[in-house]
Amino acid sequence: MATSAGTWETSVADSINTIYLLFSAYLVFVMQLGFAMLCAGSVRAKNAMNIMLTNVVDAVVGTLSYYLFGFAFAFGDGAGSNPFIGTSFFALGGIPDAAYDYAYFMYQWAFAIAVAGITSGSIAERTQFGAYLVFSFLLTGFVYPVVAHWVWSPAGWLNPGSSGGDPLFGSGAIDFAGSGVVHLVGGVAGLWGALVEGPRVGRFDAFGKPVPMRGHNATLVVLGTFLLWFGWFGFNPGSFDRILVAYPDAPAQGNWTGASRTAVTTAIAGSAAGLATLFARRAIVGHWDALEVCNGLLGGFVAITSGCAVVEPWAAAVCGLVAAGVLLGLNEAALRLRYDDPLEAAQLHGGCGAWGLLFTGLFAKEELVVQAYAKGEVGVRRPFGVLMGGGWELLAAQAAELAAIVAWVSVTMGPLFYVLHRLRLLRTPVNEELTGLDISSHGGYAYADHDYEEDRRPRRRGQPLPGSNGDYTRLQDG
Amino acid sequence: MATSAGTWETSVADSINTIYLLFSAYLVFVMQLGFAMLCAGSVRAKNAMNIMLTNVVDAVVGTLSYYLFGFAFAFGDGAGSNPFIGTSFFALGGIPDAAYDYAYFMYQWAFAIAVAGITSGSIAERTQFGAYLVFSFLLTGFVYPVVAHWVWSPAGWLNPGSSGGDPLFGSGAIDFAGSGVVHLVGGVAGLWGALVEGPRVGRFDAFGKPVPMRGHNATLVVLGTFLLWFGWFGFNPGSFDRILVAYPDAPAQGNWTGASRTAVTTAIAGSAAGLATLFARRAIVGHWDALEVCNGLLGGFVAITSGCAVVEPWAAAVCGLVAAGVLLGLNEAALRLRYDDPLEAAQLHGGCGAWGLLFTGLFAKEELVVQAYAKGEVGVRRPFGVLMGGGWELLAAQAAELAAIVAWVSVTMGPLFYVLHRLRLLRTPVNEELTGLDISSHGGYAYADHDYEEDRRPRRRGQPLPGSNGDYTRLQDG
Amino acid sequence: MATSAGTWETSVADSINTIYLLFSAYLVFVMQLGFAMLCAGSVRAKNAMNIMLTNVVDAVVGTLSYYLFGFAFAFGDGAGSNPFIGTSFFALGGIPDAAYDYAYFMYQWAFAIAVAGITSGSIAERTQFGAYLVFSFLLTGFVYPVVAHWVWSPAGWLNPGSSGGDPLFGSGAIDFAGSGVVHLVGGVAGLWGALVEGPRVGRFDAFGKPVPMRGHNATLVVLGTFLLWFGWFGFNPGSFDRILVAYPDAPAQGNWTGASRTAVTTAIAGSAAGLATLFARRAIVGHWDALEVCNGLLGGFVAITSGCAVVEPWAAAVCGLVAAGVLLGLNEAALRLRYDDPLEAAQLHGGCGAWGLLFTGLFAKEELVVQAYAKGEVGVRRPFGVLMGGGWELLAAQAAELAAIVAWVSVTMGPLFYVLHRLRLLRTPVNEELTGLDISSHGGYAYADHDYEEDRRPRRRGQPLPGSNGDYTRLQDG
Repeated sequence: MATSAGTWETSVADSINTIYLLFSAYLVFVMQLGFAMLCAGSVRAKNAMNIMLTNVVDAVVGTLSYYLFGFAFAFGDGAGSNPFIGTSFFALGGIPDAAYDYAYFMYQWAFAIAVAGITSGSIAERTQFGAYLVFSFLLTGFVYPVVAHWVWSPAGWLNPGSSGGDPLFGSGAIDFAGSGVVHLVGGVAGLWGALVEGPRVGRFDAFGKPVPMRGHNATLVVLGTFLLWFGWFGFNPGSFDRILVAYPDAPAQGNWTGASRTAVTTAIAGSAAGLATLFARRAIVGHWDALEVCNGLLGGFVAITSGCAVVEPWAAAVCGLVAAGVLLGLNEAALRLRYDDPLEAAQLHGGCGAWGLLFTGLFAKEELVVQAYAKGEVGVRRPFGVLMGGGWELLAAQAAELAAIVAWVSVTMGPLFYVLHRLRLLRTPVNEELTGLDISSHGGYAYADHDYEEDRRPRRRGQPLPGSNGDYTRLQDG
Repeated sequence: MATSAGTWETSVADSINTIYLLFSAYLVFVMQLGFAMLCAGSVRAKNAMNIMLTNVVDAVVGTLSYYLFGFAFAFGDGAGSNPFIGTSFFALGGIPDAAYDYAYFMYQWAFAIAVAGITSGSIAERTQFGAYLVFSFLLTGFVYPVVAHWVWSPAGWLNPGSSGGDPLFGSGAIDFAGSGVVHLVGGVAGLWGALVEGPRVGRFDAFGKPVPMRGHNATLVVLGTFLLWFGWFGFNPGSFDRILVAYPDAPAQGNWTGASRTAVTTAIAGSAAGLATLFARRAIVGHWDALEVCNGLLGGFVAITSGCAVVEPWAAAVCGLVAAGVLLGLNEAALRLRYDDPLEAAQLHGGCGAWGLLFTGLFAKEELVVQAYAKGEVGVRRPFGVLMGGGWELLAAQAAELAAIVAWVSVTMGPLFYVLHRLRLLRTPVNEELTGLDISSHGGYAYADHDYEEDRRPRRRGQPLPGSNGDYTRLQDG
Repeated sequence: MATSAGTWETSVADSINTIYLLFSAYLVFVMQLGFAMLCAGSVRAKNAMNIMLTNVVDAVVGTLSYYLFGFAFAFGDGAGSNPFIGTSFFALGGIPDAAYDYAYFMYQWAFAIAVAGITSGSIAERTQFGAYLVFSFLLTGFVYPVVAHWVWSPAGWLNPGSSGGDPLFGSGAIDFAGSGVVHLVGGVAGLWGALVEGPRVGRFDAFGKPVPMRGHNATLVVLGTFLLWFGWFGFNPGSFDRILVAYPDAPAQGNWTGASRTAVTTAIAGSAAGLATLFARRAIVGHWDALEVCNGLLGGFVAITSGCAVVEPWAAAVCGLVAAGVLLGLNEAALRLRYDDPLEAAQLHGGCGAWGLLFTGLFAKEELVVQAYAKGEVGVRRPFGVLMGGGWELLAAQAAELAAIVAWVSVTMGPLFYVLHRLRLLRTPVNEELTGLDISSHGGYAYADHDYEEDRRPRRRGQPLPGSNGDYTRLQDG
């Protein structure tokens, strides 16, 4: 224990807040695994290893690039600080300081590595791995951190408590856990990638009619979905950063109340969207569609991510219901427009993320905005949701964030994908796509069930013994 | 920080207790994923998507129904409060109040959605999905919350610290984390469902001899088992709700001690049951039976769930050993009685849950009962385990809970299943059962390995190209 | 709340530290699942159930043996305490005391059950299950706890704050989370097991050339790798045990700072190793090798585990880069020496673990050593890394731990494996190895896809109906 009571209180507060933020970061990290499983299950078996490696690489490359400069671009509010990009804390120099510590870095790191995972779904099953490395590095290390700076850094031009002067429209954007900063960024990047690459071979027939290309493993889809749900409990409630903040405007309440209610709104929005999708798909296609329920659920989570801390539980249900409609509508539109996104990532993360930004501008409740963004100080007033009587300022700021993200990601990632494509570095050759990326680029298939099959069948003369098996298995390490 | 030292202390306590309860809730939520994987692996591949969707739906439907009225039925101790059912807090109105906050709701929510998951195992592979929705809604929204009210609400007639007068037999029932409230409820519901539906087609031959119907994926069973173990660390130790409660009767001890010891008793009971099952199955069937070890382990967890906080570690080992015997015996009985329960859910959650209730009545230690149920106040005396010299009051209360749960679930779920069955809404038609529920009700199989197989074989003329494949794949989205 | 302010402060500290340690323990426990999935995916399908059961058994047997005597051997610093082995706390008698409580036991338990899981990888696909039980019991209950006592018990002869007199070389060994205590122990045990058993049938052809034996499921490998990463956030940062310890030598810092920085160094070391492996394998074998990236990542984690708390983030990157080289080199050497280790466990956990010990002796920073091992007391000086100007004492102690572990595990596990081998109890008969351990010892294969296959194919006359299927499925429970 430390020497004085004052110091002891600080240590207690730091310990409590660190536990909360670190374990939330670990939960967010689980989303990386969730994406890997969801993506793997949603593609064909011949590309499973490829897409899982992209998720591993997002984490690995992202850790290093976010450590070296991504975090600096996002939160480096040093002397040269400006509303567009941060300029200090490269390679964690100067950390910990009064505002940021290692736990905060870990939490933001877990967010950063998730972004590229979203995009990987849009360009799955047809992207060269070298191009993926370039894209992942730039998105995680530069494009995403800049947006995070705008919204989440006190110096950012969209920050609701902007220290660089008055916040935008007197309000600033409320994107509490990143419907826009994370999901819309990933979704728009995916949209451009998928547009530049075009559909997978055989996805639309000669008449433009879609040919189903089911993922190879629904179990992995459900596994990934539940892991993402689990991780979202770190993503949304964890975004309070510090749990030990009391609200003077409400007796016995504080960020512990806000964080818990945020877990509730998160679960409700996802569930409302999942249930709506269940019945809507039953009405549309005639069966109980497990895979789309998973996507609907995730759409609800994506949408509530912006406003999770500033809306009531009933509003979260509204958010989820509309998100389900947005996703269903965009998926229908994608089919008509012959847009092929194997994970529906642009529709789900882009579409529902955009809806989430607007939803917050409509349904944010004043008391909760003051608590989440002004520590519940008595007498503070802030713009809030249009439908709650809070005026148009917040909605305008939300729309500004939406437009700015679409523009920024489009002018950075669009040209990147286009140039890679023109250099023939982006899309895999058609024969490799048909054979599968695993065998063409990763040394073999993800699954080898030959031993199992051989052992249970009568062995014909001349067949190889198990262990010397061979034709389609590639030499792994010899 | 707040204005006064007293308020600061309250904020610290609230933050600590919220972190503990929220993260415990997240762990309990992981059990939903655990059930999904365990169930999926334990059924045949043709029904994998169906049973996983039931687990997703338990969570989705359960979130909304528990939010709207389930929590109110369980903990709504308002003006019209009575020992049978709660009557306030509908749609979280009035939350947070002095007794309950959002974190408490989240924790109870995670329990509620787990119950139907237990039952889904008993009626797997042969239940219409529409009927499942009805059943899941009623169990999670009404039948389970009522039992939770009896035992866990201060107003409940079985509550050990009953505020409505003296507790039952001067003791009340000790069902700390719900061997009875959760597992027995789910198990009895499953028993009625499986009895009404009857065995799967082909489960018993013309002579009544059982025909094995192995699950399709042991890896998923092990994955689910470990995830459930992980989640149980939220389920049992988390049930202290508040970790920052000091015990005046023991220096330097408090709920932090009790919660940690509860984690120990949980791990020991499961391990003892798992190990006993390993050797018992080796003696009975002659091989090291991985799948039954998983079930034995879970049986140990189920059994200790009632007494986990009030018994010594050595007693937990006894609990687990007997639980293994209970499960093995009931499984043998089920085969003889031609009872078909694909997940052994009635035997495991019902049988071991019932044993757990009685075990607590036998082995609860007075000091620990006082700590868990009276904050370790000095001088308080309470009934405890018969074998520890604590008299018969506790065991009688435990037996009363056991009998009441069996009766209540039987008179509610039994008729429900019966009526659905008579209306031909419960069991799937035999041809759909043979084909599999995934293809008949969910739009396709969980697994599609055709691309993978095609790609590694020589392609004959006339065979379709990958991407235009076809016959057994259903149109997913067009 | 307790009666006095002093007591309240103690309760707060105990609650905070318990939450931190318990949830860290739960994360470490997830590593058991991670190993199970990694191992399952890395072996052939015919042995999947076998290796998963070994992981379940490690947990089950380990819980009981560590409860009964393993913890006592490791931390039993009672009256008969000595530098070699502990002698009190059998069956948790005397727990909680001033130094250790149940949460500490849970945390150490989670470490203990992980050790045998490492070794199981080396001897996979060819070991009799009875022999595995003996080995797992001895390793978890005796061999590992003794090493833990040396390094982590205050009475141990390698302990850096040794209470039995001056620490070794005036320094003691810094093995913060156990590159040596856990990973090297498991790796050396695996080395002996694999050497005594010899390679799997068919692993090397008549000319000694390696024949690839791919695991059956890369998805499980990635799943396991991410779960291990998740668990490592409990393993490394959690090893601070108490998070509420302020550092007098650094304003506003404490174990909360150290723990968070440890999470950062862990992520960076793994990522650097993973990225280096990605490019190295691309250069060597010509493809982007997902499976080896997973192993490289894990090698980085293993290596940083010793020094994670006492090095700067940039040094962690160096640690990971070298670890990747160590692993690649040892894997190459293993092929040349015809050493067959299905999981590369000896190379990965043994080789990178050894490197980790030495790395700490080279790169440990004095300020961080004082913080992690002397609570940041002002004026304390301790030996630190050679390359940081800290002299040779620490490196000598690290080398002593390395040598002692190799010697101790060799003289205990080597003879055990040898005797079991001579008694023909260790290796499975060749026909059972070819058929697969699952069918020979565990009652059936892990996967049963027959129903699924039958249902989608035209049924020939005379074929059995689904449900009465038959030839290769073993009777599970009849």
